[in-house]
Amino acid sequence: MSNLAPIYRFTPAFANPSGSAIRELFKYLSQPGMISFAGGYPAAELFDREALQLASDRALRGAPLECLQYGATEGVPALRKQLVQLMATRGMSCGADDLIVTTGSQQGFDLLIKVLLSPGDNVMVERPTYPAAVQALRLAGMAMHSAATDAQGLDTEALARQLAGQPRGAMRLLYCVPTFANPTGACLPLARRLRLLALAAQHDFLIVEDDPYGALRFEGEPVPSLLALADQVDGAAGRVIHLSSLSKVVAPGLRVGWMIAPGPVRQRCLIAKQTSDLCTSPWAQRIAAEYLASGALELALPRLAAGYREKCQRMLGGLRALEDYLQVSPPEGGMFIWGRCRQGIDAQQVLQRAIEENVLFVPGSAFYADAPDPRSIRLSFAAPGLAAIDEGLARLRRAFEGV
Amino acid sequence: MSNLAPIYRFTPAFANPSGSAIRELFKYLSQPGMISFAGGYPAAELFDREALQLASDRALRGAPLECLQYGATEGVPALRKQLVQLMATRGMSCGADDLIVTTGSQQGFDLLIKVLLSPGDNVMVERPTYPAAVQALRLAGMAMHSAATDAQGLDTEALARQLAGQPRGAMRLLYCVPTFANPTGACLPLARRLRLLALAAQHDFLIVEDDPYGALRFEGEPVPSLLALADQVDGAAGRVIHLSSLSKVVAPGLRVGWMIAPGPVRQRCLIAKQTSDLCTSPWAQRIAAEYLASGALELALPRLAAGYREKCQRMLGGLRALEDYLQVSPPEGGMFIWGRCRQGIDAQQVLQRAIEENVLFVPGSAFYADAPDPRSIRLSFAAPGLAAIDEGLARLRRAFEGV
Repeated sequence: MSNLAPIYRFTPAFANPSGSAIRELFKYLSQPGMISFAGGYPAAELFDREALQLASDRALRGAPLECLQYGATEGVPALRKQLVQLMATRGMSCGADDLIVTTGSQQGFDLLIKVLLSPGDNVMVERPTYPAAVQALRLAGMAMHSAATDAQGLDTEALARQLAGQPRGAMRLLYCVPTFANPTGACLPLARRLRLLALAAQHDFLIVEDDPYGALRFEGEPVPSLLALADQVDGAAGRVIHLSSLSKVVAPGLRVGWMIAPGPVRQRCLIAKQTSDLCTSPWAQRIAAEYLASGALELALPRLAAGYREKCQRMLGGLRALEDYLQVSPPEGGMFIWGRCRQGIDAQQVLQRAIEENVLFVPGSAFYADAPDPRSIRLSFAAPGLAAIDEGLARLRRAFEGV
Repeated sequence: MSNLAPIYRFTPAFANPSGSAIRELFKYLSQPGMISFAGGYPAAELFDREALQLASDRALRGAPLECLQYGATEGVPALRKQLVQLMATRGMSCGADDLIVTTGSQQGFDLLIKVLLSPGDNVMVERPTYPAAVQALRLAGMAMHSAATDAQGLDTEALARQLAGQPRGAMRLLYCVPTFANPTGACLPLARRLRLLALAAQHDFLIVEDDPYGALRFEGEPVPSLLALADQVDGAAGRVIHLSSLSKVVAPGLRVGWMIAPGPVRQRCLIAKQTSDLCTSPWAQRIAAEYLASGALELALPRLAAGYREKCQRMLGGLRALEDYLQVSPPEGGMFIWGRCRQGIDAQQVLQRAIEENVLFVPGSAFYADAPDPRSIRLSFAAPGLAAIDEGLARLRRAFEGV
């Protein structure tokens, strides 16, 4: 009775989905001797292992039941308290009740899509932008729009022109990484931040400010977050939802992120989270709380910034030898350098040669919600050591020469 | 310009959502001296603290980078290997590639809804059933249907009558907890399991078998899981998706669950998970892997079963003094006793009196996808100690007497 065999019927979005283009590259990581400028992994040698070990010991010995039992959906109180203090050091004032702990900031965005967006809604992302955000929006059936960027990030005047003439409220939400963007590394200047907030008020859209990298500044002066600025712009208060994460500054393995959102949004995200995973691992949250309470992050951040500055400068220095092939924009923080190949060079072809040369990067085409720029590439300096950066760039040069 | 103030527009499901009725009861838990038969929390005194401490130490010292760095979306290899062995002890044969680690089994169900179900699809649950499953399905816009149960669980003959005459494929999915159900504690007998699988083949639906409690048997003989039986029933192979979790047998604080699903379903859930939380905490996964590899769970399970047997028997014994008010069904495992009040008694009214008496339970109305039975109640014997069970039942008796 083979006619009884199941034929799986999937939702339209999942009928024939493609996974992450970046994760597709992971299979090459096991190639012996591979040097990777792909991925957004933090530097393993900069993990604060001893302090994390101490935090882990203190968490389980000090509060075993809070580690092991179910926790509140909004997060472990001890961690929320620490995160409020962390946000204050970043110029954002909030109370513990304004904040939900999420399973990475990725979950924060997933919850927002669930409660705020219906299939067909208009959503704006940067061009280029973070691929998992595009993927989440696509799988949820959104109508995607892209806003132009330049070396300073979102081109807010171009955005204004793009929105002009649209009915107020037609655009529902704009997702952006304004500080040390993935993939471009760009940091949006203050004037553009204020302009973006004014556009949100004028056109009635919400802004999701994803900020995993903001604390990793190694050049220039800090710029206030969109959340911190929203109250200063007429009509913008309550329009910014701020997502952040410990993944890039402490450890991705914790899967601890958080969301600061206006009450009506936050309360609904909480209900969505009850059915998504009940709560983020209370054990991981307790470890994070102990780590933050120990003051270790304050000590670690200058070390992290110095480490990434050194790696970034090493890569920028090495890239000078490739300037016939590749033009890059120096970032002031974060983990990424964005480049554009000389006219006539296709990044995908360079990648094929690069894999043969045992060096990996991500072709920029992975980062576009619409027609990709085939000449762009993303290089991460975060994970490899200095010698590997030198050697990887030598290999990359051979790859360019061979195309 | 107050006309610029944001008015949040939510998806229809989240326009006016209600949270978990059980979580609403949590506020009373802080009432001094409260004894709770509500919640599904495992017994804190049965947590295997020393072995978990050892596992935690071994995880971070032995594989620090695997704990701290991002992990594969499908799960940490060391844990998947251990889970394959655990499934084998439960009579389910699978390979590591058949299994995805999820952030609790709750996430497994969330992923399945994302990839398999579109708003308006027909989904069947037991009557009564697990509230977070109903909530997840409701928020995703499903057309809910309820299948009758009795003391042995799902009434498969009633289900057959319910499905008769419907076009093949009209029912898309059936969600059930066949072994020590939440809330009824019932364990579905073998003959009904085979009948359910035959109905799935005949009517072309998938079965989600949620099995967090199956290892907590303290009476009677094990019954094979639906997943283990599916290959024996014509046309049923590939129709069962099995969810399980370490929450009830190790610790909820890990938030480690898993899904065994046919390839096409599993691959899509993996893509959905990339946008849900990238991966389940690799640190928590590593601790779980070390715990399982140490053999500690094999030693702990008989202790857990003995502990829950003792508590269950104590509660059943004490409930004899309430039999004028409440009829209960003795379970063979799990954490719950399901009861039905004498005609004319409303469980919600009893709860109000019970809260005054400082004892808590969950009115059965929380567990229905359709018209609730106002006389039903769920009592959990898992968390309180023996003396608290005695005292709590004395208070419950006073509550009944006062209604």
